[in-house]
Amino acid sequence: MNIKRLNTQKAGFDAELKALLAFETAQDDSIDQVVANILKDIKARGDAAVLEYTNRFDKTGATSLAELEIPQAELQAALASLPAAQREALQAAADRVRSYHEKQVMQSWQYTEADGTLLGQQVTALDRVGLYVPGGKAAYPSSVLMNAIPAKVAGVQELIMVVPTPNGEKNPLVLAAAAVCGVTRVFCIGGAQAVGALAYGTETVPQVDKIVGPGNAYVAAAKRRVFGVVGIDMVAGPSEILVISDGQSNPDWTAMDLFSQAEHDELAQAILLSPSAEFLDQVQASIARQVTDMPRQEIIRTSLQNRGALIQVKDLDEAAEICNYIAPEHLELSMDDALAFSKKVKHAGAIFMGRDTCEALGDYCAGPNHVLPTSRTARFSSPLGVYDFQKRSSLIMVSSEGAQKLGKIAATLAYGEGLQAHARSAEYRLK
Amino acid sequence: MNIKRLNTQKAGFDAELKALLAFETAQDDSIDQVVANILKDIKARGDAAVLEYTNRFDKTGATSLAELEIPQAELQAALASLPAAQREALQAAADRVRSYHEKQVMQSWQYTEADGTLLGQQVTALDRVGLYVPGGKAAYPSSVLMNAIPAKVAGVQELIMVVPTPNGEKNPLVLAAAAVCGVTRVFCIGGAQAVGALAYGTETVPQVDKIVGPGNAYVAAAKRRVFGVVGIDMVAGPSEILVISDGQSNPDWTAMDLFSQAEHDELAQAILLSPSAEFLDQVQASIARQVTDMPRQEIIRTSLQNRGALIQVKDLDEAAEICNYIAPEHLELSMDDALAFSKKVKHAGAIFMGRDTCEALGDYCAGPNHVLPTSRTARFSSPLGVYDFQKRSSLIMVSSEGAQKLGKIAATLAYGEGLQAHARSAEYRLK
Repeated sequence: MNIKRLNTQKAGFDAELKALLAFETAQDDSIDQVVANILKDIKARGDAAVLEYTNRFDKTGATSLAELEIPQAELQAALASLPAAQREALQAAADRVRSYHEKQVMQSWQYTEADGTLLGQQVTALDRVGLYVPGGKAAYPSSVLMNAIPAKVAGVQELIMVVPTPNGEKNPLVLAAAAVCGVTRVFCIGGAQAVGALAYGTETVPQVDKIVGPGNAYVAAAKRRVFGVVGIDMVAGPSEILVISDGQSNPDWTAMDLFSQAEHDELAQAILLSPSAEFLDQVQASIARQVTDMPRQEIIRTSLQNRGALIQVKDLDEAAEICNYIAPEHLELSMDDALAFSKKVKHAGAIFMGRDTCEALGDYCAGPNHVLPTSRTARFSSPLGVYDFQKRSSLIMVSSEGAQKLGKIAATLAYGEGLQAHARSAEYRLK
Repeated sequence: MNIKRLNTQKAGFDAELKALLAFETAQDDSIDQVVANILKDIKARGDAAVLEYTNRFDKTGATSLAELEIPQAELQAALASLPAAQREALQAAADRVRSYHEKQVMQSWQYTEADGTLLGQQVTALDRVGLYVPGGKAAYPSSVLMNAIPAKVAGVQELIMVVPTPNGEKNPLVLAAAAVCGVTRVFCIGGAQAVGALAYGTETVPQVDKIVGPGNAYVAAAKRRVFGVVGIDMVAGPSEILVISDGQSNPDWTAMDLFSQAEHDELAQAILLSPSAEFLDQVQASIARQVTDMPRQEIIRTSLQNRGALIQVKDLDEAAEICNYIAPEHLELSMDDALAFSKKVKHAGAIFMGRDTCEALGDYCAGPNHVLPTSRTARFSSPLGVYDFQKRSSLIMVSSEGAQKLGKIAATLAYGEGLQAHARSAEYRLK
């Protein structure tokens, strides 16, 4: 199996790294046009349009949108009928995710100045949130937990989940996860039509304030288009992992950690950095040996061959520099004193420290969110969190004394900008 | 002058309110196509393309992009040459904005569980931020302060400002504001070409991680398109104010507060809610009387006639409900005990409390940011703040003991999702 071997000391490395990371997120114009038309139709015709698209694309035979709603009792029944080990694992994961996210709750704050002027920010939750859950092969119950729990912890009153059910097939694990999270309502709809229903509201589907959750190219294009009417979480690219090893890690473990990313899809990216050529050799051999044993080996092969790399670095400090350029979604630090090394990391979605901390633990149950910034966006964005379901209002109460001082400053600046009503309004408060 | 009078008790009020707030933010396809081509060209040809567009659109005669950079000494000179009152007002405003925003700095946090597992979030600043400042008539130095200061407080190392200078005309107040804020570099470029230069980087303009600041329709379309390559702040709509008065306010003050919003532009929206019909009459009369005296009276008239309204409500509780539906950018609570009333406000960009607190104070110097969510987006978004220039990385360091417990949960869920490499990777850590 061919996986790229790079070396920072060789000429042309910077260009090779740039090419490796290049991922064209160019919007597909034809998809975008289809999506624009669907959204327009949903906005104009509501339920009737959602029903038509759903029956057409998902081959459901519903006669009303109400038929496509899953009652709470069915969610609870799905949970109750899971094998005990699965049900307990789901509950345990939910409990850990909840308790971690409770640490993220933002509080209102205010302070009063000497002259009695009060300033601060009032923090409130969003009223109603839409949760998009993909159907079919990529139906992940863990994704329901990771999107729904932060919203609940934030205090969002209503969670409206949409999940397409092609040919009417429902995923019991996904329904069980919705029950565990306390999702308010679930509709079996998907695609751009579901995004439109949530963004504009229809007779049956209530309008939400923000839409979160992953989806295919149509869902991504729809989310981009309704951004502004409602909030959206992010438009995610393929998943990635960067492993930095001091060379003392178990090569089989490291190879499997790379697989755990590569198996997501052919476009996923797994990169290993190490100062030890010998360790890179060992991992390469382990990859070749272990891959034949993996049920998803075709996906893993394609991903590693097209987008993977084993990179020899001068030392760990150089690895930190490269890491900060890559700004990986997942970063594994497989080394002694990973905590000290983490201080050098400026840009990463999640940092997994120490040889025992494989990414898979974070994907399911360590507590932190698995919705993370991809494609170098960790340079400017954060994991999904409670803070994505809260927002702030500035608080300003100027005392009569404060109005004298501030009014003069404001008037001076307002006249400078040619905004006389601003100036006059401030001057009215001068005694 | 015709300004709409509505009454919540009259039939059809809900539809009238909805129509009043309706604002078509539909993207203009022809603008979008022009912008797409400019961005593509900037990405491909860098400096040469930026220079061509700038010379063409801004009628500058530069022969290199370096010529369009303003040296630090020129910024300092602009500050030094301001009239003392203006310079002092600018400094005083900057000081207040800085000290308020210092309260917003997010800190890293972590905790250790009983088995030694460490969880948390590491907070870091963005490396480099681009600040778009409009040129021409809407060149506001206060906008420089409000965008640049939170970035500096967050710890952003480099602030790259772009400001178009049509016909080479520079605004000394804007340059002075850049000096006050410690902006790193300033380029006299604007439009989609400046957004492209910041997003992709050119030979001369460094690539940034996020672009903030207001702009015209071309700038907005360009920001929407580069979102994902870099972060953006928001795509702002026209400015709005909602004033809620108990009827005991000075009608001249209230009228002027409405003007201070309306004078921004013809699309700005100013709405007054009060249970007192008499007070609404008085404000209406004051508007008619005072408007003739305003230098920007044509803009004010158009704005108030097309998009303004005086609305009689049953009582202040009903006013709170309407306010939460509108989710206004600016909310003035002109009443006794406005602080108590503010607890009923769920959605608003900024809340100005008490009769002395006019919006203009917040626009310039009270301290809180004047970049606020418009067009009902306060339902899901917040004022610009230090938090927009910081981001979080999840921290996960699982102890050997923790890996036993978490590994089993993760493996169970991973097998349930058909992700065997995830499961195997967790199982490798089991003893």
